Amino acid sequence: MAESIPGFYAVIPAGGIGSRLWPLSRADAPKFLHDLTGSGRTLLRDTWDRLEPLAGEGRIAVVTGRAHRAAVERELPGIEDHNVILESEPRDSAAAIGLAAAILARREPDVIIGSFAADHVIRGTRLFDHAVRQAVAVAEEGYICTLGIPPTEASVGFGYIKKGGELIVDAAPEAAFVERFVEKPDLETAKQYFTDRSFLWNAGMFIARADVLLGEIAENEPELYAGLMDLAEVWDDREARGPVVDRVWPTIKKIAIDYAVAEPAAEKGRLAVVPGHFEWDDVGDFASLAKLNSHGRGNDLAILGENARILSDASSGIVVSQTRRVISLIGVKDIVVVDTEDALLVTTSEHAQRVKGVVDALKLTGRDDVL
Amino acid sequence: MAESIPGFYAVIPAGGIGSRLWPLSRADAPKFLHDLTGSGRTLLRDTWDRLEPLAGEGRIAVVTGRAHRAAVERELPGIEDHNVILESEPRDSAAAIGLAAAILARREPDVIIGSFAADHVIRGTRLFDHAVRQAVAVAEEGYICTLGIPPTEASVGFGYIKKGGELIVDAAPEAAFVERFVEKPDLETAKQYFTDRSFLWNAGMFIARADVLLGEIAENEPELYAGLMDLAEVWDDREARGPVVDRVWPTIKKIAIDYAVAEPAAEKGRLAVVPGHFEWDDVGDFASLAKLNSHGRGNDLAILGENARILSDASSGIVVSQTRRVISLIGVKDIVVVDTEDALLVTTSEHAQRVKGVVDALKLTGRDDVL
Repeated sequence: MAESIPGFYAVIPAGGIGSRLWPLSRADAPKFLHDLTGSGRTLLRDTWDRLEPLAGEGRIAVVTGRAHRAAVERELPGIEDHNVILESEPRDSAAAIGLAAAILARREPDVIIGSFAADHVIRGTRLFDHAVRQAVAVAEEGYICTLGIPPTEASVGFGYIKKGGELIVDAAPEAAFVERFVEKPDLETAKQYFTDRSFLWNAGMFIARADVLLGEIAENEPELYAGLMDLAEVWDDREARGPVVDRVWPTIKKIAIDYAVAEPAAEKGRLAVVPGHFEWDDVGDFASLAKLNSHGRGNDLAILGENARILSDASSGIVVSQTRRVISLIGVKDIVVVDTEDALLVTTSEHAQRVKGVVDALKLTGRDDVL
Repeated sequence: MAESIPGFYAVIPAGGIGSRLWPLSRADAPKFLHDLTGSGRTLLRDTWDRLEPLAGEGRIAVVTGRAHRAAVERELPGIEDHNVILESEPRDSAAAIGLAAAILARREPDVIIGSFAADHVIRGTRLFDHAVRQAVAVAEEGYICTLGIPPTEASVGFGYIKKGGELIVDAAPEAAFVERFVEKPDLETAKQYFTDRSFLWNAGMFIARADVLLGEIAENEPELYAGLMDLAEVWDDREARGPVVDRVWPTIKKIAIDYAVAEPAAEKGRLAVVPGHFEWDDVGDFASLAKLNSHGRGNDLAILGENARILSDASSGIVVSQTRRVISLIGVKDIVVVDTEDALLVTTSEHAQRVKGVVDALKLTGRDDVL
């Protein structure tokens, strides 16, 4: 097995609930705590296992909410206390990753951090390693580096990265500048991107020297930067931390790292991309979950969960079962059935994006007990 | 309110489980014990309430299985012991109705019985009364009389009755001879029947003098007749009944009353029909249940059950809920969702007839616990 990467520290923001996967994902069982591939392991655990060989033992930090502390520690029994960075309240990705960067930079000024979502599915560990090692080499040169996934179809579900000119770094033969980021496109545009080889899927992974990342936040969001510095200064001092967190946390701006760091850095020629040739999916909704579990056999019914009492007659799509009930499907195509103890969802792949609307409706009507 | 009909006795065979309505209907909760219209009353109770004004107090017998005795008595607190006719084992409709006829004829030789399924839905009590009163008048003349429903669409889900010539009975101005019975037709034939006014739906209701009905059985199924006579002879003698039942019941032939009585009687010109202008449905499957509960608004989602936690986004069809779970439907059309504690069914109106196949599959694979 290859050696871990010197000076590299992995950060796993484990925050989002994954509302588009309701009622499977919910406040007390967010997406990253589920096994969405039938591997027997949660996405968080898979992420950890993928990163540990690269970062080395004891060099992965998880940023998560207080509510998930126990679950995270249960999933990751090897994690040290000081590597569980607890958010008082969610403040979006710039704060989560920026705080980790600030804390780690104080502990280890030259550290290179890599941020990897806790709830994505990646297959192809050697290709992943290969991409991360290149990205770290790019980061050592002072760039912020992202991993971009070469599209395998004209997806409208992901944002895109437009590659610019080559970036010459010896240990990163595939590195390029990022010309710009593009939000989720319409189908026509997605088809153009797919044939044009210079567009990559934005998988939201960032690798950079912690001080470079923080410098970018300082330039673009000085107040956020100041807040993160205040927090980091006392973070490892158990006595001092509490009052500062209470005072500063509520003032921390909610902003995605894409806007606080990636897009401005790209404009200034400071953002690089390395293509990741591994299989990647953010499993954004049940359509994507169905595809992920159907192994390309669109006529089959994918089943997630250990329920063996499922009868399918001429049906396709996905059944996610968290109960022991007998589930019988007859003549329903591209169906999505999610069967949990207190909530049932029935929809189709086509309408999977609308699940979030149901969650919003449940919130509005005071039925939070099932969220 | 009109007087009850002198000499008339109603018989309610309450036998079938209604497998096409699984997992709602099942062995310990057969179709007749469900409220399928949202009325707050079971179909059995509705049937009883419809018949009591016609038959008079204490003049309705229910033929049911031992397993359902308690439930039937709970539903019909007014029923007298001697009016609960218990079958040791189901032996199809000729035995059920024939046994009731034989028992009632011994108690009251001139009795006219009317047999009405426990699990059909009828709306329009005055029209029902009107039809039954005519049918009794026809029965008094020595005919076996059925009620036929003028079709309101080209249904392929029902059998048909072909009306023959007029039958002149003073108190039954609409009576006619039955020319023949027709099994469920294909769509083309159903369309012809619908335009030809002489075809009526076979609703399986029979009104006849008990001795006439028994005479017909004697002619067509002499062994069945003999068995029924043996049973009836001792039925009201608690001490003698047991051994005779044990001996005779296993020999009783399983045959539908259509074949043992109705069709042969029609051939011999002894079967009459009176049209019933009331709304009638045998609620044979979930498609029919959906239609029954949608009140003609096909774009709506019908909901059966007291669950108020159902969210529909652009969905139509029917949800039957026996749990308190939140049920969310998104973009599913003509869907059928049946949510019970231990089993879930998802299908569409189009495939509703195939539910029975699932029940058969569950039986074959030893999962009888949910049947």
